[in-house]
Amino acid sequence: MPLILGIDPGSRVTGYGIVRVEGSRNHYVTSGCIRTTRGADLADRLLEIGDGLTQILREHEPEVAAVERVFMSRNAESALKLGQARGAAILTARQHGLAVAEYEARKVKQAVVGTGAADKAQVQHMIRLLLGLQATPQEDAADALAIAICHAHTRASLSGVASDATLRFGRGRLHETS
Amino acid sequence: MPLILGIDPGSRVTGYGIVRVEGSRNHYVTSGCIRTTRGADLADRLLEIGDGLTQILREHEPEVAAVERVFMSRNAESALKLGQARGAAILTARQHGLAVAEYEARKVKQAVVGTGAADKAQVQHMIRLLLGLQATPQEDAADALAIAICHAHTRASLSGVASDATLRFGRGRLHETS
Repeated sequence: MPLILGIDPGSRVTGYGIVRVEGSRNHYVTSGCIRTTRGADLADRLLEIGDGLTQILREHEPEVAAVERVFMSRNAESALKLGQARGAAILTARQHGLAVAEYEARKVKQAVVGTGAADKAQVQHMIRLLLGLQATPQEDAADALAIAICHAHTRASLSGVASDATLRFGRGRLHETS
Repeated sequence: MPLILGIDPGSRVTGYGIVRVEGSRNHYVTSGCIRTTRGADLADRLLEIGDGLTQILREHEPEVAAVERVFMSRNAESALKLGQARGAAILTARQHGLAVAEYEARKVKQAVVGTGAADKAQVQHMIRLLLGLQATPQEDAADALAIAICHAHTRASLSGVASDATLRFGRGRLHETS
């Protein structure tokens, strides 16, 4: 049964979440967040993200990773910081042989809440319901689980169209390559 | 003799350059650029940067890396792309055990041209002169060599103050830690 790793990268907190897909059902495997050391060097903080994800990748061996696609419209400084964390996280997943799919935020919300305009609290609430969790996950972990579920749904909705082997996950779109 | 790796990360072209420091002289070791495949997935392009730098790190085993510190004032989208490339490059250097120093662009130009307002052509010209090269290096490679030379100068100017062992390179500033 395929394991999907959702990642919500950030320079301070990187959320992660893994779901196992069984038919049309998604099961919770693990989730959490990697907090970087405040005041540490940029390189050390990126290493914390890389090492944290490496540990998760080694322990659970997910087949595929998914991240939110980002559209930055304002603050260039925060875009740079986010980009650095994304670069470290995506590289780490790819170094472990995973394809990395990207999904727009509204598509992720649509997949778990049914509307692209949901807020973080709604996402946390629905993740708890959908995965039958005893407690509400931390918000970055919930976002990561939502991204993993979005990827599972997208796979499922295409399963009648083409086998997995013919799908290539690139930049959040699904391309048939053969 | 310490080898310094300068890196000029970019989503399309990442320049690199290594200089060997002997006393007050800097000697050219290697330089070049890693070009990512146009139209390839983000994860694959970040892997190209990571793999390219890994090859250079394994071949030459530099002791320290240096990158330009970035102040973004405008385009958030280009800041995100640059951030992703920086994240991949800095993480790769740090994964190989290197400290990564950051220097402001005007400090790098000051170190090689003598003024913080130099243009790219001047940097290329001075790199050729300073390192006694037969040809002018490509501009991203020249920038990377300039960053390495800036780091060498900063080390040298502090050598009367404290031994290397007591210096910690963090975010482009040099802190004495003991």
